[in-house]
Amino acid sequence: MTKLGMGVVGVGAMGTRHAENIRRLIPEAHLIAVADADLARARQVAAELEIEHAYNSVEALVERKDIQAVAIVTPAKFHGAAIKACAHAGKEIFCEKPLTLTVEEADEVLHVTSKAGVRLQPGHVRRYDPAHVRAKKRIEAGEIGDPVLFKSLGRDPSPPPVSYMASGVNGMFFQDSGVHEFDLGRWFMNDEVAELHAYGGVLVFPEAAQFNDIDTALVNMKFSRGTLGAVENYMQAVYGYDIRTEIVGSKGTIMLGYLQQTPELVLTASGTRTDVVDHFLVRFADGYLDEMRDFVRTILADGELKVDGFDGRQAVAVAAAAERSYREGRPVAIPPAARPAKA
Amino acid sequence: MTKLGMGVVGVGAMGTRHAENIRRLIPEAHLIAVADADLARARQVAAELEIEHAYNSVEALVERKDIQAVAIVTPAKFHGAAIKACAHAGKEIFCEKPLTLTVEEADEVLHVTSKAGVRLQPGHVRRYDPAHVRAKKRIEAGEIGDPVLFKSLGRDPSPPPVSYMASGVNGMFFQDSGVHEFDLGRWFMNDEVAELHAYGGVLVFPEAAQFNDIDTALVNMKFSRGTLGAVENYMQAVYGYDIRTEIVGSKGTIMLGYLQQTPELVLTASGTRTDVVDHFLVRFADGYLDEMRDFVRTILADGELKVDGFDGRQAVAVAAAAERSYREGRPVAIPPAARPAKA
Amino acid sequence: MTKLGMGVVGVGAMGTRHAENIRRLIPEAHLIAVADADLARARQVAAELEIEHAYNSVEALVERKDIQAVAIVTPAKFHGAAIKACAHAGKEIFCEKPLTLTVEEADEVLHVTSKAGVRLQPGHVRRYDPAHVRAKKRIEAGEIGDPVLFKSLGRDPSPPPVSYMASGVNGMFFQDSGVHEFDLGRWFMNDEVAELHAYGGVLVFPEAAQFNDIDTALVNMKFSRGTLGAVENYMQAVYGYDIRTEIVGSKGTIMLGYLQQTPELVLTASGTRTDVVDHFLVRFADGYLDEMRDFVRTILADGELKVDGFDGRQAVAVAAAAERSYREGRPVAIPPAARPAKA
Amino acid sequence: MTKLGMGVVGVGAMGTRHAENIRRLIPEAHLIAVADADLARARQVAAELEIEHAYNSVEALVERKDIQAVAIVTPAKFHGAAIKACAHAGKEIFCEKPLTLTVEEADEVLHVTSKAGVRLQPGHVRRYDPAHVRAKKRIEAGEIGDPVLFKSLGRDPSPPPVSYMASGVNGMFFQDSGVHEFDLGRWFMNDEVAELHAYGGVLVFPEAAQFNDIDTALVNMKFSRGTLGAVENYMQAVYGYDIRTEIVGSKGTIMLGYLQQTPELVLTASGTRTDVVDHFLVRFADGYLDEMRDFVRTILADGELKVDGFDGRQAVAVAAAAERSYREGRPVAIPPAARPAKA
Repeated sequence: MTKLGMGVVGVGAMGTRHAENIRRLIPEAHLIAVADADLARARQVAAELEIEHAYNSVEALVERKDIQAVAIVTPAKFHGAAIKACAHAGKEIFCEKPLTLTVEEADEVLHVTSKAGVRLQPGHVRRYDPAHVRAKKRIEAGEIGDPVLFKSLGRDPSPPPVSYMASGVNGMFFQDSGVHEFDLGRWFMNDEVAELHAYGGVLVFPEAAQFNDIDTALVNMKFSRGTLGAVENYMQAVYGYDIRTEIVGSKGTIMLGYLQQTPELVLTASGTRTDVVDHFLVRFADGYLDEMRDFVRTILADGELKVDGFDGRQAVAVAAAAERSYREGRPVAIPPAARPAKA
Repeated sequence: MTKLGMGVVGVGAMGTRHAENIRRLIPEAHLIAVADADLARARQVAAELEIEHAYNSVEALVERKDIQAVAIVTPAKFHGAAIKACAHAGKEIFCEKPLTLTVEEADEVLHVTSKAGVRLQPGHVRRYDPAHVRAKKRIEAGEIGDPVLFKSLGRDPSPPPVSYMASGVNGMFFQDSGVHEFDLGRWFMNDEVAELHAYGGVLVFPEAAQFNDIDTALVNMKFSRGTLGAVENYMQAVYGYDIRTEIVGSKGTIMLGYLQQTPELVLTASGTRTDVVDHFLVRFADGYLDEMRDFVRTILADGELKVDGFDGRQAVAVAAAAERSYREGRPVAIPPAARPAKA
Repeated sequence: MTKLGMGVVGVGAMGTRHAENIRRLIPEAHLIAVADADLARARQVAAELEIEHAYNSVEALVERKDIQAVAIVTPAKFHGAAIKACAHAGKEIFCEKPLTLTVEEADEVLHVTSKAGVRLQPGHVRRYDPAHVRAKKRIEAGEIGDPVLFKSLGRDPSPPPVSYMASGVNGMFFQDSGVHEFDLGRWFMNDEVAELHAYGGVLVFPEAAQFNDIDTALVNMKFSRGTLGAVENYMQAVYGYDIRTEIVGSKGTIMLGYLQQTPELVLTASGTRTDVVDHFLVRFADGYLDEMRDFVRTILADGELKVDGFDGRQAVAVAAAAERSYREGRPVAIPPAARPAKA
Repeated sequence: MTKLGMGVVGVGAMGTRHAENIRRLIPEAHLIAVADADLARARQVAAELEIEHAYNSVEALVERKDIQAVAIVTPAKFHGAAIKACAHAGKEIFCEKPLTLTVEEADEVLHVTSKAGVRLQPGHVRRYDPAHVRAKKRIEAGEIGDPVLFKSLGRDPSPPPVSYMASGVNGMFFQDSGVHEFDLGRWFMNDEVAELHAYGGVLVFPEAAQFNDIDTALVNMKFSRGTLGAVENYMQAVYGYDIRTEIVGSKGTIMLGYLQQTPELVLTASGTRTDVVDHFLVRFADGYLDEMRDFVRTILADGELKVDGFDGRQAVAVAAAAERSYREGRPVAIPPAARPAKA
């Protein structure tokens, strides 16, 4: 079996998970190197995963000829530069979400990867979560008739560290959190967002204000064919990592709800308690593995990616429109964009 | 025990329920008469409930001196006239929701009842549903910290009969369905809606268009102190009567969800099934009884109503703003209004 | 409409509920009198329910010619005598469970009522609970194929007052609590218990021992056609009133579970909590009303009772066998008994 | 890092899963060889897992000096011989459940492994399932007070292939299925079963009779300190793989229930549906990995196994007593047995 030689750039918690999955659980891939701006960290992860090579930059890593594909898991503001470096070196690319932090940069990386003839998959992990996958199939099979309403919420158990917020840009909340919801909306409704209206606020985490960010957001959306969508993001669901999506159709509805982690129920005089999922790496463990496996297999088969750069760009565009609507206090239309022809 | 002499005006399904509750389950009240434009129907209900008097108009009913209070359960467009007739006759008034169909008419009935020195309670039944009551107490006790997000949805199992839609006015969907959500938002957040933005559409029930109505609505709201709200209404949840409200706070969240009617679970090779609540008279049976009992006891005690005409007026004002936002495609601010001084 | 004149004997919490239902919610019945050994209590309930007559004995009450039917809701040890007094006076009889405390006394009351030509319905309320009723229909419709396993548990939130235990006889736990389970088993499996084996113990409520009673019981059963059953009863489920029944068939299973009282969910940093049903009068409110209404209508229609004295006798027989098995440490067979021919 | 050299004997579905876990997910172990009576199958699994060595017998595999530990995943009737072969070769042993099919053989393998100075862990996977682990911790922390009742059921979605039944011995149902329940009872109650009574039957799968086996079993148990237990096993829960355990204590209860596989809910006019877990390899994926990882780490650390041969022997003894009780129609006492002193 010819294996896909791979490198991972950025080995924080998320990057380390991707590296582990590639190293241990995807036999079709061969993890050759990891890179991190913190070289000591790169070396430690390499040692833990029993691989030989560690670098301190994407540029150094992509010089290796035995690497055909790279997973980019750096902070979002470095995504654009890393994608370009990989594209110039002819590497196939998986990049964590959000693809970029602006529409302009998204268009630029689409142009660069297209010109270089390399594929680009954004890390829209929910499209690979087993429950989401089944829901999509049910919708396509007509189980709920015509989908007319898309609803989705994402709540983090607590605000990110201030250092994380400091690493971003204005309005990161819509790009960082909402982008999952916006991508799901496009996917489940099989349509593009035509217009939206957003409210937001700094309601529980005052530190967000100093980064010009918010902790609570509501976005109502109108899709191009007239159906509707409602998105919520919230930073401080102290009870757990709460991700819920619902697609309402003319003949039924599908609810994807994720409060309970295990089927454990404790009943005492002070009430009935269940546990709750507390972290996205727990909630989406299967999804992270399945998306990387699908990326690897698609590249090896020289096939078409299920989620591509254009999907990443469109989610960024919706998030940017939400940011503008929130800032300007009015509905914002999103101009239609055409999926680029294949290189 | 001195009992409160009562009459019920309008004995369709909802009015009959109120009449039954008054007749059978509220010993402090004495149901003296019912009225309906359809006199035969009024007589039939009177016979079933074993009471003597049936009339064909509110005017005829309020002439009775032994009636101190009237429950108005006519189509909404007749609420205003009925309230005025009762007020002129000096009767205390319970009136089903929505209080009126316009803010102007709401202001008028507030003026008239205030001048007549009679009390007016709108039928905001959810404030009396046991689960909602407990949720309100939990919020007041600080269990979820500061409430920052109010979310609520109301889905009917099927569109109303065309005859029902024909009995209303433009934009009845926001007034007829959304009004419950808007009132709950005010109550749970202990605040007024300052601005909102609405999307709507005719997505599943084309007949709605001929009445200039819609079947699907999304309303995002900003409360006066900066917290946010999101409301959904939908006409065709074929699976049942689906009412869900969630209040998200800085220290937790409360979910009120009502899909399952009984604790019955059927597991077969074709899956796991539960039943669902199919009708508001089933879902809110306790609430309808508790609200009428509270009305009766408050009147007998010459006390202050828990929900009054001003609450009814404010819910109508939010619904009217939602209607305008939907028609004009822009956010609409709701001018502050002061609760009138007691007569 | 000719109404059924009724009396209620024994107006503790349970008897008062039956009296209220008859007085307020069953228009076909006319509550004429209540009786209680505590005459002051009888008078108070009569006043609250706005009826005229209160007595201090069943004998006094049954002298009234305008009473055609009596509901007996005394402590179980007085059931036999009360049934006989009613039968001799020619009254139709509803009697709370357990019908009697011994099989011998059950046979005696069957004989007496049969000879007097009066009907006798034991208060097997679960047969009227809406979820149980639907489950029975599903089984009869073949939804789960052939039923092969019956499982049922009943847990009280706390042990009864010592005064209640003192009012009974040896082994009351099987008769007082298990009798519901045993009756359900007969009903759902449409079969008789042929043999059983019981374990029991005083595990949490040492006071039970002084009454020769137990607080925990497990009973395994074999039905006459070979299918199996498992019953649990427990006195101290501090978290609530927990009643669960499951019928397992060759093509599926039906679960009836009753932990959650309302659809309220509270999520905080200390976990997810729901409320739980805390009392049988809450859990079975509908059932208590439906069973009395069915009794009244059946008597008025001169029809055949859905649950009759023989059903009461058989449940008592199973409970008595469980008691013996527990005491003697061996399986106990239950001799077949024939339903008596109609009088 | 020194790695533990391992072999896997028996590579059906279960053995392959263990081999995959060792090969891919437990970096501290090094999978050196697999063996299977079907050599072609052994070679295929070796190729898929990219390891070099495949054998057709345990005897051939244990000749390798680089293998320090062996996982035995053959049909249960070969466990005894395989354990002895491994022990004679000085290998540490993990053996799938049931440890053996008779108490006598269990005692023999305990003797042999003790004499050889090798460790022996039976595959009681539920002790490693995250929800079960947490439940055990809660009990030890006193969250439910004193445990007084242990309840557990295991239902397979369909009977095993006839070939599987043919590979066993009389009464395999208690040993093959019930053994999980019996082990959990010992673990959660921290006690030994002193006596039990079993009912069983061939109620849905007539083919079971020809193997002198049953498809349905109920076992009531009394633990040595007086607490009670109830176990159910059933072969044909067509709706899925249904595993539920409940520990009832003086101050609360813990329920471990496993019907729903993902948080997906589909609501249509024909009802509300969820999916269900359909296979033990899905339900206990985490448990299988955690148990093998714990075995590997314990051996490497020269530590004491969490679950050992004596635990395996005791579960077999309870199953054997259940089998005898079922056959003889009477309660059966289980003689106390002492955990052997460490070699």
